Amino acid sequence: MNESALRRLLSRVAGGELDLEQALSELRTSPFTDLGYARVDHHPALRQGVPEVIFAPGKTAEQIVGIAESLQEKGHTVLATRIDEAQASIVCDALPGALYNSVARTVVIQGRVPTRDRQVAVVTAGTSDLAVAEEAVITLKCCGVGVVRINDVGVAGLHRLLAALPVLNEAHVVIVLAGMEGALASVVGGLVASPVIAVPTSVGYGAAFGGVAALLGMLTSCASGVTVVNIDNGFGAAMAAIRMLDASA
Amino acid sequence: MNESALRRLLSRVAGGELDLEQALSELRTSPFTDLGYARVDHHPALRQGVPEVIFAPGKTAEQIVGIAESLQEKGHTVLATRIDEAQASIVCDALPGALYNSVARTVVIQGRVPTRDRQVAVVTAGTSDLAVAEEAVITLKCCGVGVVRINDVGVAGLHRLLAALPVLNEAHVVIVLAGMEGALASVVGGLVASPVIAVPTSVGYGAAFGGVAALLGMLTSCASGVTVVNIDNGFGAAMAAIRMLDASA
Amino acid sequence: MNESALRRLLSRVAGGELDLEQALSELRTSPFTDLGYARVDHHPALRQGVPEVIFAPGKTAEQIVGIAESLQEKGHTVLATRIDEAQASIVCDALPGALYNSVARTVVIQGRVPTRDRQVAVVTAGTSDLAVAEEAVITLKCCGVGVVRINDVGVAGLHRLLAALPVLNEAHVVIVLAGMEGALASVVGGLVASPVIAVPTSVGYGAAFGGVAALLGMLTSCASGVTVVNIDNGFGAAMAAIRMLDASA
Amino acid sequence: MNESALRRLLSRVAGGELDLEQALSELRTSPFTDLGYARVDHHPALRQGVPEVIFAPGKTAEQIVGIAESLQEKGHTVLATRIDEAQASIVCDALPGALYNSVARTVVIQGRVPTRDRQVAVVTAGTSDLAVAEEAVITLKCCGVGVVRINDVGVAGLHRLLAALPVLNEAHVVIVLAGMEGALASVVGGLVASPVIAVPTSVGYGAAFGGVAALLGMLTSCASGVTVVNIDNGFGAAMAAIRMLDASA
Amino acid sequence: MNESALRRLLSRVAGGELDLEQALSELRTSPFTDLGYARVDHHPALRQGVPEVIFAPGKTAEQIVGIAESLQEKGHTVLATRIDEAQASIVCDALPGALYNSVARTVVIQGRVPTRDRQVAVVTAGTSDLAVAEEAVITLKCCGVGVVRINDVGVAGLHRLLAALPVLNEAHVVIVLAGMEGALASVVGGLVASPVIAVPTSVGYGAAFGGVAALLGMLTSCASGVTVVNIDNGFGAAMAAIRMLDASA
Amino acid sequence: MNESALRRLLSRVAGGELDLEQALSELRTSPFTDLGYARVDHHPALRQGVPEVIFAPGKTAEQIVGIAESLQEKGHTVLATRIDEAQASIVCDALPGALYNSVARTVVIQGRVPTRDRQVAVVTAGTSDLAVAEEAVITLKCCGVGVVRINDVGVAGLHRLLAALPVLNEAHVVIVLAGMEGALASVVGGLVASPVIAVPTSVGYGAAFGGVAALLGMLTSCASGVTVVNIDNGFGAAMAAIRMLDASA
Amino acid sequence: MNESALRRLLSRVAGGELDLEQALSELRTSPFTDLGYARVDHHPALRQGVPEVIFAPGKTAEQIVGIAESLQEKGHTVLATRIDEAQASIVCDALPGALYNSVARTVVIQGRVPTRDRQVAVVTAGTSDLAVAEEAVITLKCCGVGVVRINDVGVAGLHRLLAALPVLNEAHVVIVLAGMEGALASVVGGLVASPVIAVPTSVGYGAAFGGVAALLGMLTSCASGVTVVNIDNGFGAAMAAIRMLDASA
Amino acid sequence: MNESALRRLLSRVAGGELDLEQALSELRTSPFTDLGYARVDHHPALRQGVPEVIFAPGKTAEQIVGIAESLQEKGHTVLATRIDEAQASIVCDALPGALYNSVARTVVIQGRVPTRDRQVAVVTAGTSDLAVAEEAVITLKCCGVGVVRINDVGVAGLHRLLAALPVLNEAHVVIVLAGMEGALASVVGGLVASPVIAVPTSVGYGAAFGGVAALLGMLTSCASGVTVVNIDNGFGAAMAAIRMLDASA
Repeated sequence: MNESALRRLLSRVAGGELDLEQALSELRTSPFTDLGYARVDHHPALRQGVPEVIFAPGKTAEQIVGIAESLQEKGHTVLATRIDEAQASIVCDALPGALYNSVARTVVIQGRVPTRDRQVAVVTAGTSDLAVAEEAVITLKCCGVGVVRINDVGVAGLHRLLAALPVLNEAHVVIVLAGMEGALASVVGGLVASPVIAVPTSVGYGAAFGGVAALLGMLTSCASGVTVVNIDNGFGAAMAAIRMLDASA
Repeated sequence: MNESALRRLLSRVAGGELDLEQALSELRTSPFTDLGYARVDHHPALRQGVPEVIFAPGKTAEQIVGIAESLQEKGHTVLATRIDEAQASIVCDALPGALYNSVARTVVIQGRVPTRDRQVAVVTAGTSDLAVAEEAVITLKCCGVGVVRINDVGVAGLHRLLAALPVLNEAHVVIVLAGMEGALASVVGGLVASPVIAVPTSVGYGAAFGGVAALLGMLTSCASGVTVVNIDNGFGAAMAAIRMLDASA
Repeated sequence: MNESALRRLLSRVAGGELDLEQALSELRTSPFTDLGYARVDHHPALRQGVPEVIFAPGKTAEQIVGIAESLQEKGHTVLATRIDEAQASIVCDALPGALYNSVARTVVIQGRVPTRDRQVAVVTAGTSDLAVAEEAVITLKCCGVGVVRINDVGVAGLHRLLAALPVLNEAHVVIVLAGMEGALASVVGGLVASPVIAVPTSVGYGAAFGGVAALLGMLTSCASGVTVVNIDNGFGAAMAAIRMLDASA
Repeated sequence: MNESALRRLLSRVAGGELDLEQALSELRTSPFTDLGYARVDHHPALRQGVPEVIFAPGKTAEQIVGIAESLQEKGHTVLATRIDEAQASIVCDALPGALYNSVARTVVIQGRVPTRDRQVAVVTAGTSDLAVAEEAVITLKCCGVGVVRINDVGVAGLHRLLAALPVLNEAHVVIVLAGMEGALASVVGGLVASPVIAVPTSVGYGAAFGGVAALLGMLTSCASGVTVVNIDNGFGAAMAAIRMLDASA
Repeated sequence: MNESALRRLLSRVAGGELDLEQALSELRTSPFTDLGYARVDHHPALRQGVPEVIFAPGKTAEQIVGIAESLQEKGHTVLATRIDEAQASIVCDALPGALYNSVARTVVIQGRVPTRDRQVAVVTAGTSDLAVAEEAVITLKCCGVGVVRINDVGVAGLHRLLAALPVLNEAHVVIVLAGMEGALASVVGGLVASPVIAVPTSVGYGAAFGGVAALLGMLTSCASGVTVVNIDNGFGAAMAAIRMLDASA
Repeated sequence: MNESALRRLLSRVAGGELDLEQALSELRTSPFTDLGYARVDHHPALRQGVPEVIFAPGKTAEQIVGIAESLQEKGHTVLATRIDEAQASIVCDALPGALYNSVARTVVIQGRVPTRDRQVAVVTAGTSDLAVAEEAVITLKCCGVGVVRINDVGVAGLHRLLAALPVLNEAHVVIVLAGMEGALASVVGGLVASPVIAVPTSVGYGAAFGGVAALLGMLTSCASGVTVVNIDNGFGAAMAAIRMLDASA
Repeated sequence: MNESALRRLLSRVAGGELDLEQALSELRTSPFTDLGYARVDHHPALRQGVPEVIFAPGKTAEQIVGIAESLQEKGHTVLATRIDEAQASIVCDALPGALYNSVARTVVIQGRVPTRDRQVAVVTAGTSDLAVAEEAVITLKCCGVGVVRINDVGVAGLHRLLAALPVLNEAHVVIVLAGMEGALASVVGGLVASPVIAVPTSVGYGAAFGGVAALLGMLTSCASGVTVVNIDNGFGAAMAAIRMLDASA
Repeated sequence: MNESALRRLLSRVAGGELDLEQALSELRTSPFTDLGYARVDHHPALRQGVPEVIFAPGKTAEQIVGIAESLQEKGHTVLATRIDEAQASIVCDALPGALYNSVARTVVIQGRVPTRDRQVAVVTAGTSDLAVAEEAVITLKCCGVGVVRINDVGVAGLHRLLAALPVLNEAHVVIVLAGMEGALASVVGGLVASPVIAVPTSVGYGAAFGGVAALLGMLTSCASGVTVVNIDNGFGAAMAAIRMLDASA
């Protein structure tokens, strides 16, 4: 409930348009829908032009369908992440227009989104990072953002990355995904002036500790001003990029 | 060495303006100054209009002075971070115009910087976070960025934060600093649509583990699109904010 | 063996009612039943009016049945937690009246319990926390405690939580379940004056580290007087709540 | 801002007693005082009859004095925790009536508090836990709570603990402080039916890891319904006890 | 190769009984059998009257059979630990007299062992610790050691443990197995004067971290002179007990 | 309170020698002395012929003196460990006969102890482990145990260890102290048949993590039956050795 | 792109053999092949006479085939590591000459490699380390390096290792693989003067923490000059050995 | 004691040159000197032409002098590492020719060393890594190895590193020192074909965790065949380099 909404509400009370009980109820319940097992928040979609995401793990397929329907009713785009095949199959059967991407582990039901004309580069250190990259790309695309992809440019073969510099330099925001030691984020951060969002991936074994090595490496990057999101959080990186694009609009 | 610089260099070789040895030497050495103990990079300043920062720990005061002089010669702003009082005293004696901030633990020698007209909000959960916040503020200011500060709005007293919402909503980028459980980043991330850069601080004891609790909390924030920098890294948060402001310029 | 029981025992020895061997034996063996693989403790039920819980992992279904029968014989309520489907199926076949809850992963055979008239609020940050919440609810209910549930009020959409404040304020004890960064515990702790028991859940991925991020966040909460139980320990939270309700009776 | 306050505010707007700007301002700013470096929250004192605590680390003595004066003006008790000798000396000079306890590392300026007639037992495993216990005791006492202390009853000499059982059984809430393996919490949890708040202390070395061994031990206690606070958090344990006492009042 | 064996070897060289090449070969190859994939060590059996154990994980069933046959040829007892059902089935088919214990996950082929007449107590905190306890018991028994078992005497119900004290006091060595917080080791260590070997088990969840909570608790036990082995290492505890029994023989 | 003591007590009640109140009081209070800040346990000394140790950190010198006097009155040996120079100086001034060892950081006041005629070998990997070894040696000696020391036989120079084998083979118990990777425990464990108590020391840096590398290495030793105590716990190792010697007496 | 290649390129531009656009393109794209999902690097094969390895996890079998074909076209040896049976089956069907090793989890298509005449010793502590050792051996062999294997010489039976010393002393580089405490690396490092590459393996349980105990032990080895690679990284150890052999050629 | 020494010893026994007792004594005691607190190993110097290093922490200055004198008597070079100023001052006073380097924290007394004609490159990511680099350089130089230094070439300014490539390519072994994320090791590993020894340094703060971030990053490097030593272990890296140089001699 932001400042201006509050101001409008109080005006209506002062003007007699709204009685006390109604005002109280509005303050408490809007704008979300209570399904019992979930309180579907219509706020992000209203405020940011982005979908309210459904984080699938731990939810039944039926709960996912219920939340999706509630969002759909208001015309929002629906994005379910980390959805497994069994859940996705039930959801896609129940909801016409739902599209499952098995690499990104997402289901999308495209709704109205504003067009955003600036571009995000999604860069991977290796082919094994593609699943997380796909989650970022799907999220960006279903919010109307253009994407350019640069794959398999890990720092062990620097010439591959240097060849991609012209493309990198034109992106407004750069998302870098890397597992193992995650050094790519530092090298890219040193080469470009635009915002760099680093996504550690769980690629690797042993001392990679499921992405912790990359996470620590990215947090302690010697390139100034690189920011980091959670391990394998392609969705979060995309949402951060959208915040940045919209701030510059 | 970016695309267009490379293109120009090769043109001059092709045109006979530059012989082979000169080209090779230029490719290798520019634009930095080798002081033996340091290779002072003039690249960030050229490329980003930001100072090459001097990370003071582990350097002698003499080395800091040497690096600062090399930067100053080119007219860049000089910013030394995490500098202790003994180092700062020698540096300020040696370099006219150098200003020491004992809270932020910085020395600044202001050079030419572009004016940036968008504003960054710097928000702290508690009074104990002020030292890290100060490092962010100093960095932003010496790069010409306007700052609005909102202090001591931790989530245990939500009304303090809600009162600051109008100010928060006007900033183009929000930097949130919090120690202990770092919950402020999630709450702010849910309230504003602009980019949120979360800085975990080492405030707290026991299971706070020197900022780790806040770091993990910020990385796993339920608010989408919050990005994170290293523990106590006020400088890095400011540099990330500048990347975002410049991308939107 | 508490003070008054000891006093009574010694009186009977002094009065000749009990000879030495009998007294010794009573001191050693009561009140539990030795099944060889288990020593079934009738103490909690006697002392607290709560069931002796059977922690199912690592036990055979036959052992669970044996322990349950021993408890049932004394008329106690039986509660088995973290029981899997295979175990539950055998247990429910063997014991008439046994009820399996597949979400909470519990089997309950309801016995006599005192009625407790104060209410506990069970609050979740997201739909994915429902399984752990269910374990808490089942435990409270089979001990005769009234429960009010408030689901999916994570801090990224504060208005959902604020809407639930009137209900929260009426509970005598509040159990807060949250995964990821667990910030909900701090926010609730700041809003209510009653005891708050925080349960970190293993919801989340990457730096959530199976509930560790939420655990650390709750332990370092900036809201004073929030207490914490183990990750995913819905049962323990309920038992703590009952201790608190009974202390105030 | 709780339900009834909100209801009153809206009534006054509806009744014309309050115009829109005033209402808005009240919603935003009350009840705290903005000192620039701190927003002193008067909410806990109003709501809970407990002091707003001042966490001293990272604050200057001047800031502590400022916050204390703001609290004092409203007649609240002031409690500063983890204050070092240098800070305490300045604070006690500036504020008449301020009392420094060097073991507990607290400064207290006693204000009006409600009398609470139920008692809390504060139990330590060893003499080395006394500093943390003292912090809990000071906090309880300055909130008007009666305290009974049982020291040095670690489980390696069980007979010492068993001797204290009659006293333990009469307390309404039990706070258990233990370092090293922290086993005392489990044993006490099994012996009493009242709420048990376990405080891991940083007593020990090596694999005690500054209190982590005790923390993990208390979180995984085989005694049901034991709750835990942060390492060395005597203050937090006391505040949790007060929530429990007040809930039962 | 110990002192006296060396002395004998050199005597034979000096006396011309052994030529240089033979001596060298003997020094290098005895007493083990090289199977290519394994060098079967006959040393433990010769020296200690204990079996050379075969740690099954990562070995093929064929390799286990090969090693077992090599040991059997010399008349040693064979003990394979952590063997899974598939491996055990092949091994038992191949080797007459091999006995599989599915709880302990062991295969034993009993050979000649010295009789040891002192007794070891094997004590568990809960029924869920029985699998690890069984591994210890099997190891002790196949080495000719008498065992007394005391199950399910966790510290949450102290009276169960106190009842077992007379039996505990008669054992020459006590092995204590406990998961969760592992407090039983401290309590037993305080009650008996004999050697106590603590075995943390992986029983528990969340902050039990697969036995780490119990491990740390046992290492930092406030009871002096308790020693610890690896998590779930029933075999190692038994071997340590045998070292202690034999030292006292 | 062991079986036979309990039996005697009950006989006296049954025989009228003791009335109820006296019996109760005896059951509760004996045998310890309550000093307020400490409950001095006379049990270990009675039961095991070993001193009740005073763990000095966190205690005032006055408290240490008080506890020591209480022990001395009963004729027990007093051993204070991890005592710093300031504490030791006050303690030695107050207590005639008190001897301070600055390497071991102990104060001893020798009392009556049984003579123990078996010998313990104390083996160090390097000269830097000597302080912890000294704590073990002091503890053993003040309990009347003979010690043989073997220093600086780390596995990087195996010939140094092999040269010490004849001495090692004659000890009844072997205490091995090693920092860094702690490999010495495994090698010694493979060479001798007697009980081996491994003490990880905090010698080393970086990935030694203050003794954690050695601790993990010793817990996972490939030599069967090696037991482990806490990092730098020379005292605990000595107490474990005494338990083993006494069991074999 | 190394110095001499750069020099040649610039000569050709200066000599008019190459125009600007061609030079630029060559600088950016050579020598790798862009498959979209992967940028196949031909650089390692050109530079080092070693295959570009394909790390299989997270790649589809089709992607592996595509990358392999691209490498094969240039005549390079192809080595895929950590490939599972399903992937391997498709790859071997698609590519004639591909050989799958199920122990090492590798697929190799042998290409032209230089002959290397120095030998590497691959030493394992136990039979369970053989899978990782096999990965190292396969890698060495497909690069033309001679291998001598010494298996199951863990330090608990030192005589097995000492017997292998003559063979060890003749190797130019020694790779030591060990799980559990990994002490073998220290002992071998003390016995030989040649380079020792230590590979911690994930063999063990409990406090072995999936290879972490061995990793820490090897990093803190008391034997000077032992270097370490990642847990279970047989491939990396082999590649390091080849760097060392080639440096000495 | 290697093969050929053993062979010679046995020949002398067989030939009657040596009697049994003498042989035994020689086998056990040579070649080290027992000082009581230390067994000075002359083996490394004999075998490898490298000094036996004295690890100073935890040793008294007197012990260091004693060990140094024992080494000096045999003409070996003496190298003490991690020596503090107080120790160094006493050592330098006692031993003529001893040179203290306060940056590297070493004392060296140069003895006879073989000349080694191949060169090692010592590369640092930043000026703050110089202390650790100095330890490596001192170690290399006192063993007669030529060193080329390349400082401050962290990956955030790649052009600085690329400029140094010609020098890097001529070194036979490359030691890379980097703190923070340690990415320099991966980039250098991808650019050169020679052996790369990575040294993580403790430079950095927060999530750098005292060098752990760099350590994990180097262990999981995407550049094949990079090996790693302990955090801040400049000495160990130098010793590893010498093993490699000597293997290629």
